[in-house]
Amino acid sequence: VSFNEAQAIALFRQVLKRRNPEIVRAIGDDAALYRDGLVVTTDAYLEDVHFDRSYLDLSAIGARAVCGTLSDIAAMCARPTGVFISLMLPTGTSRAELRELYSGIDAVCSQYKTEVAGGDIIAAPKLGLALTALGRARRARLRSGARAGDHVYVTGDLALAETGRLVLKNGLDARGYGPAIARHVLPWPRIREARRLARHIGGLIDTSDGLSTDAGHLATESRVKVIIDYAALPVTPSTVRLCASRGQAVEQFVLSSGEDYELLFTSRNPDLPGRILGTRLTRIGRVEAGRGVWLQRAGRCVRLRPTGYDHLADGEPCTARRRARR
Amino acid sequence: VSFNEAQAIALFRQVLKRRNPEIVRAIGDDAALYRDGLVVTTDAYLEDVHFDRSYLDLSAIGARAVCGTLSDIAAMCARPTGVFISLMLPTGTSRAELRELYSGIDAVCSQYKTEVAGGDIIAAPKLGLALTALGRARRARLRSGARAGDHVYVTGDLALAETGRLVLKNGLDARGYGPAIARHVLPWPRIREARRLARHIGGLIDTSDGLSTDAGHLATESRVKVIIDYAALPVTPSTVRLCASRGQAVEQFVLSSGEDYELLFTSRNPDLPGRILGTRLTRIGRVEAGRGVWLQRAGRCVRLRPTGYDHLADGEPCTARRRARR
Repeated sequence: VSFNEAQAIALFRQVLKRRNPEIVRAIGDDAALYRDGLVVTTDAYLEDVHFDRSYLDLSAIGARAVCGTLSDIAAMCARPTGVFISLMLPTGTSRAELRELYSGIDAVCSQYKTEVAGGDIIAAPKLGLALTALGRARRARLRSGARAGDHVYVTGDLALAETGRLVLKNGLDARGYGPAIARHVLPWPRIREARRLARHIGGLIDTSDGLSTDAGHLATESRVKVIIDYAALPVTPSTVRLCASRGQAVEQFVLSSGEDYELLFTSRNPDLPGRILGTRLTRIGRVEAGRGVWLQRAGRCVRLRPTGYDHLADGEPCTARRRARR
Repeated sequence: VSFNEAQAIALFRQVLKRRNPEIVRAIGDDAALYRDGLVVTTDAYLEDVHFDRSYLDLSAIGARAVCGTLSDIAAMCARPTGVFISLMLPTGTSRAELRELYSGIDAVCSQYKTEVAGGDIIAAPKLGLALTALGRARRARLRSGARAGDHVYVTGDLALAETGRLVLKNGLDARGYGPAIARHVLPWPRIREARRLARHIGGLIDTSDGLSTDAGHLATESRVKVIIDYAALPVTPSTVRLCASRGQAVEQFVLSSGEDYELLFTSRNPDLPGRILGTRLTRIGRVEAGRGVWLQRAGRCVRLRPTGYDHLADGEPCTARRRARR
């Protein structure tokens, strides 16, 4: 593909005309927002691009896809009201396998009192799921809500899911990596946390593409400067250990690893608690007037380029992604 | 795949639990329906399964996919309020091609005063579009609304789109096939017609899988017997001519050809006009107590099996579909 995601979005905004005044926010946020609080998001997951059947069973693949899509509902401070699935089903799939896939999907839905309310199913060469989730927000939070003077927070641990993915993918000794593997396999969306924190939140996004990229979206949409304090970033010893074993710099790994599906948000409040509903909450930076994402480390401040996952940057999806992220 | 679409739907209904009392109708209709009139439908279109780039340009592929998805909104007597697209984009796609695809999509949206309000874009081996459309219905119509004593109506002409597809696909002389080709390339959804007819409609579905299959859905969901009068079916001379040139029986072709995206509905009213908003409207049968779909021809009445398109019946999607439908 001869263009990146940002260029594609710019093209969409140019070609696709706005016609429905009920739509408050369309392309460019985690989900679309209607005036009445309806929230809609859509996401696709393809075999060998987004998941690997060699170490995830169908139940886990289904569960993980729903978690990822519902994370966009969390990122709007909404509660989910329905999930819709277009399923691309490969030749040779058995009913038992189909049951397994949907059992995983239903198990996650049940945690959030939601359900699969519709879908479509077609034969295809590889397994694929296109998920749409609907939600309701009493007062939605957007990427554009960050203001100079805000503090930056993130839930959970950065790069934890990618740590787990690499352990599974490369067949490493799993001892000490339990939480990391769990976060990769089942990245519970932070729906309850977001709603509990709602009144404190200014700008909000979920970390699906990596901190540098996702913080960049906040900065761009809010037209502010986001400054990240490297020393404050929540990184578990397991991630440091994995990087050491691979001879990889922790900094780059932490800034660019995606699919944590945590909340990244800004708040006027500098004193939010260290845990919310059992989930870690960490203040990792601040918002100032200006542009871009900056990393403060050992007294120096450098501007960050988005180094996280770009859904279009890869030539050959699977190989290239593995190359880029291994 | 070792099961058909009906079996998959039965499995979904078993595995997927209902939890949201706001959802009036979930799996099993053209779209899901919420208590407040919100309607949601989702559909996927894959290269070499649902469309063929050898004779459709990207603008037409985009336009046709939106028409197909909006047809499910029409089939609920709703008006569209937003379209969401998960795009699977092959390596090597240029910005000009992306622009062409979305121009076709936006052109159809503009006809129905709706818009693309969100989406997702990923790199994939083949072009694919998973579309979700939202709509609003003041009083939705369902597949389950047919009652004994109703009359059966269909808009447009049966098998017209398939006639056009075959002319294009096989590179036949297009003279006399203009309307057929147009219906295949741009099957305008019958949104305005459905809303205009709303107060007359009992049970409603759109003809996407072929008359025998779609009438079967009406019969099953309404628990009635649908009797089709063969002599009344609206079939254009172009379809008869095409069948003759292929040595194919018109009856089977007309009963099983899909993707017309017309309205198939039942009504108490035996005297609906022959045209509605310029679109042909034909009474083609009646509803009685009982089960199944029956075809009345030359005084005899035979039970029809669903012979239309089953999205899962094919071994190898493209080849098998061509085999089944050529």
